[in-house]
Amino acid sequence: MSAFRMPGLPERVTIYEVGPRDGLQNEKTIVPVADKAAFIARLAAAGLRTVEATSFVHPKWVPQLADAEELLAVMERAEGVRYPVLVPNERGLDRALRAGVTHIAVFASATESFARRNLNRTVAESLAMFAPVVTRAKENGLWVRAYVSMCFGDPWEGEVPIEQVVSVAVRLMELGCDELSLGDTIGVGTPGHVTALIGALGEAGIGAQRLAVHFHDTYGQALANTLAALRCGVTTVDSSAGGIGGCPYAESATGNLATEDLVWMLHGLGIQTGVDLPALAATSRWMATRLGRPSPSRVVQALPVEEEQ
Amino acid sequence: MSAFRMPGLPERVTIYEVGPRDGLQNEKTIVPVADKAAFIARLAAAGLRTVEATSFVHPKWVPQLADAEELLAVMERAEGVRYPVLVPNERGLDRALRAGVTHIAVFASATESFARRNLNRTVAESLAMFAPVVTRAKENGLWVRAYVSMCFGDPWEGEVPIEQVVSVAVRLMELGCDELSLGDTIGVGTPGHVTALIGALGEAGIGAQRLAVHFHDTYGQALANTLAALRCGVTTVDSSAGGIGGCPYAESATGNLATEDLVWMLHGLGIQTGVDLPALAATSRWMATRLGRPSPSRVVQALPVEEEQ
Repeated sequence: MSAFRMPGLPERVTIYEVGPRDGLQNEKTIVPVADKAAFIARLAAAGLRTVEATSFVHPKWVPQLADAEELLAVMERAEGVRYPVLVPNERGLDRALRAGVTHIAVFASATESFARRNLNRTVAESLAMFAPVVTRAKENGLWVRAYVSMCFGDPWEGEVPIEQVVSVAVRLMELGCDELSLGDTIGVGTPGHVTALIGALGEAGIGAQRLAVHFHDTYGQALANTLAALRCGVTTVDSSAGGIGGCPYAESATGNLATEDLVWMLHGLGIQTGVDLPALAATSRWMATRLGRPSPSRVVQALPVEEEQ
Repeated sequence: MSAFRMPGLPERVTIYEVGPRDGLQNEKTIVPVADKAAFIARLAAAGLRTVEATSFVHPKWVPQLADAEELLAVMERAEGVRYPVLVPNERGLDRALRAGVTHIAVFASATESFARRNLNRTVAESLAMFAPVVTRAKENGLWVRAYVSMCFGDPWEGEVPIEQVVSVAVRLMELGCDELSLGDTIGVGTPGHVTALIGALGEAGIGAQRLAVHFHDTYGQALANTLAALRCGVTTVDSSAGGIGGCPYAESATGNLATEDLVWMLHGLGIQTGVDLPALAATSRWMATRLGRPSPSRVVQALPVEEEQ
């Protein structure tokens, strides 16, 4: 298929691949470390230049990623590829530094309810906890991303006011974060809401070039929301290879946007990603066999199966 | 959730509900006529103002809708609701007129391959066949829609040139059709392609107010494409309650855009549809039990189940 460009969209988009971390941590199956390393290597070989590798959250909370140190010790690193690691606190940062990690991510919440449930802290307490993490990370020359969860709706609080998200975002950038990923954790946002939030962040001094968007497909809105974000100048989009991290048919669905569905749209729009789509889909099919269920990605289901996997 | 409007989008969208016809004709289960009538009545009660009811295609080809006459005899008709019926040829038109139908749809193809396989004719022959159908329908005061299949890609021919679609579209409008529905039958289109096609049709004298869009979610692009079409001034969108007409997990997926997923986006954008979303989702859940499989609509899966069904 030819590409058909639309005015006002970027020439190139950076896909921030979250499958090995956000994907696998939300799957029931615990994948062996060798398969995780192979997954990450295949994603890089398929052209992804940012692959979030694992997490230093305590194994009590995320047993799926309890092998973080081991994975970081064995995984190959391709030239020009970033492998960020999630870091929840100073102890996690110590582990990341010992493991030679160069890119980290911290995770905040836009709402008190989710901060309490996910971090067992108020929003203010969690930001105070991140302050020394970000300061020390920057002193050590690390690149720091901040996730903000529940930027559109929250299961306990309903709609999240834009000014509340802006307030948390501004504070995170003041701490020294390099990039901010706006999470629609429950997937309820729509394109006008996305546009309004990115506009408000811009007015608060956080330009679209420092933003990423992280949409969930729980209500089917992820790709339409991505299109709206691209029109606002956002050029970094989070997605999960094969859509892993929550089957849309399961009650526990988190519904990560599938990288393949995103790439289909971007390439159709003539936007460069560097991704080899058949190689990526083959990787997701391979991981699906390890997870014991079909990939929820529409593109993975629709594309013909390649002979060589 | 509040609505967040975006500039350049319409105030109101007409949803052209295709579930009872395009949906049910692509399901394995043959639904009894009483359930079809109840389905249509519930869709109208949920606020849909256009509900394509059935088809006069020969039962040999579409056994699921072999009860068209019986359905039209027993179904209730709500005030202000249109119930178009698909009509393949003059014989179908005769049956429609005898049944008191006031709105019909004919279906053409933008490609020779699909015209041959679906209509057993060349594109030119099929247009010649429609000419007397449309002429007689208009003489009898009927409203006539024309579907054009394979407007973006074709499984045998690959990408479909825009000028080829424009040529078929212009001819159908010259025959006297009132509305043209642009079908992405295999779901491969992307937002820039949609924008380019609608622009080319406009240059050929077919304005967006006479167009509808009919997207399939086979590659997950349907809602992003809809957003692009709305920006071009299109105000009629085809969709299928609960996404019936092809499970995305089945090989035979046609993947109709789910009306609920569409309504979620439109209402989030502050665009009026007249649809009561919980009532619609309850209707789709009810139909899903009759079809023996869960609704593929993301919104139907995500919304809490209402007590009263």
